[in-house]
Amino acid sequence: MRIAAVHAADGKIFGTLSDDEFRPLLMNGAPVRDLRDVIALLEAGPDRLQHGTPVALSSQTLAAPVGPLTKNVVCVGKNYHEHAREFARSGVDQSGDKQESPEFPVVFTKATSSLADPLQPVPASDDPTGTTDYEGELGVVIGKRCSKVSAEEALDFVFGYTVVNDVTARALQQRHKQWFLGKSLDGFCPVGPWLVTADEMGPLDGQMLTTAVNGEPRQSAPLRDMIFDTPTIIATVSAYVTLEPGDLIATGTPAGVGIGFQPQRFLVPGDIVTVAIEGIGELTNPIS
Amino acid sequence: MRIAAVHAADGKIFGTLSDDEFRPLLMNGAPVRDLRDVIALLEAGPDRLQHGTPVALSSQTLAAPVGPLTKNVVCVGKNYHEHAREFARSGVDQSGDKQESPEFPVVFTKATSSLADPLQPVPASDDPTGTTDYEGELGVVIGKRCSKVSAEEALDFVFGYTVVNDVTARALQQRHKQWFLGKSLDGFCPVGPWLVTADEMGPLDGQMLTTAVNGEPRQSAPLRDMIFDTPTIIATVSAYVTLEPGDLIATGTPAGVGIGFQPQRFLVPGDIVTVAIEGIGELTNPIS
Repeated sequence: MRIAAVHAADGKIFGTLSDDEFRPLLMNGAPVRDLRDVIALLEAGPDRLQHGTPVALSSQTLAAPVGPLTKNVVCVGKNYHEHAREFARSGVDQSGDKQESPEFPVVFTKATSSLADPLQPVPASDDPTGTTDYEGELGVVIGKRCSKVSAEEALDFVFGYTVVNDVTARALQQRHKQWFLGKSLDGFCPVGPWLVTADEMGPLDGQMLTTAVNGEPRQSAPLRDMIFDTPTIIATVSAYVTLEPGDLIATGTPAGVGIGFQPQRFLVPGDIVTVAIEGIGELTNPIS
Repeated sequence: MRIAAVHAADGKIFGTLSDDEFRPLLMNGAPVRDLRDVIALLEAGPDRLQHGTPVALSSQTLAAPVGPLTKNVVCVGKNYHEHAREFARSGVDQSGDKQESPEFPVVFTKATSSLADPLQPVPASDDPTGTTDYEGELGVVIGKRCSKVSAEEALDFVFGYTVVNDVTARALQQRHKQWFLGKSLDGFCPVGPWLVTADEMGPLDGQMLTTAVNGEPRQSAPLRDMIFDTPTIIATVSAYVTLEPGDLIATGTPAGVGIGFQPQRFLVPGDIVTVAIEGIGELTNPIS
């Protein structure tokens, strides 16, 4: 099943997608405005879902299919070997770490306030250092509260998958040593275009993650190329941090980011970035 | 004015403190359960506050005087010169940075799920590395939405101050390079004992921040010793991240943490940690 959010006249509402129709979800007769309610409704039984009047998806404005978030987006850094190498070469990494590929997951966060919708302009103009870069990533949405779960059972706690662009101001990432600020500018976390539930996605394996800038291919890797796979990430984070339904994890980006080029290629207003994952869809955002 | 939260039969409620009395705040006749509502009520006029029946504070169980948080706790690292030196010596820092005192604020986050109440046991037993350490800090609570504010105007956006213990699993902080996981174990962010509004606190200057473990003094510094003062921190963060009413910033810890000793001294179950700031109060938590 695909779950989308759209901007209605009175705010963001969630619904299901069927072909090209958006079917608003109802809870006690009212529109559903919180992904946690969507998760609870599906938990109670997909056959018992109540819908409002279907509308053509093309008539709607998509919103980020998550939220309201109750913790920052949990992000994994340096999680594809070739990206770890390009990142080490770039000089942005201040970890002082001789190993290019990390021995343990590198985990940081993006502020809830950085969340952005599909097609929402990403304000590179708010990055005074002019070093805004894309990072196409698989997003994992938690479906059940989990604490200290093993990798073997971790996927039981996943609700679904989406696409995340972990937009980053490279000079701020470097300047402030810890990555939070350079990763958390308002609007620097586009998510979408919708969620695909775990059962519909199937095993994470050869699905290709690709990123293009103005149509030019930049990143391309199968999801199986992650250094730490999704079960390992969930096990590692939940060993310390209780994850709740609706929490979003961004699982890291493959090689091909702008700082990997020589000379480095940063995003500028007018660029169009599209991140696509096979089995989910395409997340496109203009740069402003 | 002092604002506290207590555990009532049906959940956490906020109120004001007057001498040793807790006076529950009411909004449209109902208890107030969200710090943002407290902020809105005070914004509307302190003389128009409505209260429930006062009770002796000693009869109540204090709760963290913040929340529900809508973004992670924003934290500043290495923000006192002498602590920056002891941290560099400890080997925990993976920043590979020759400068002991940072040129720009080092900003990371603690998960909302790490929040803990005064007197709530801090589970060092959940840190498998046995390297749990305290960090006494001034907490700053935002009162008004702020984006791109100058240091000169930053204090206009502060609602009040509290005490934070930025409890840290040192080996996890080191192992995962970015600090989020080692800082975010469930229960590793005690906050309290209450908030003091900005007008009551007055200028941040010579008020002493002290931390004691089992009554033994460990940290002691005046608030004025911060490398980046509160206005600078708010200006730096808000340059990129929109801050909202109720957001909590932990401003960094002075010298005297456990990793600063030789040999290093970590917290063990049975220890009692008290962080105190003059003009606010004492935040005490046992270690479990």
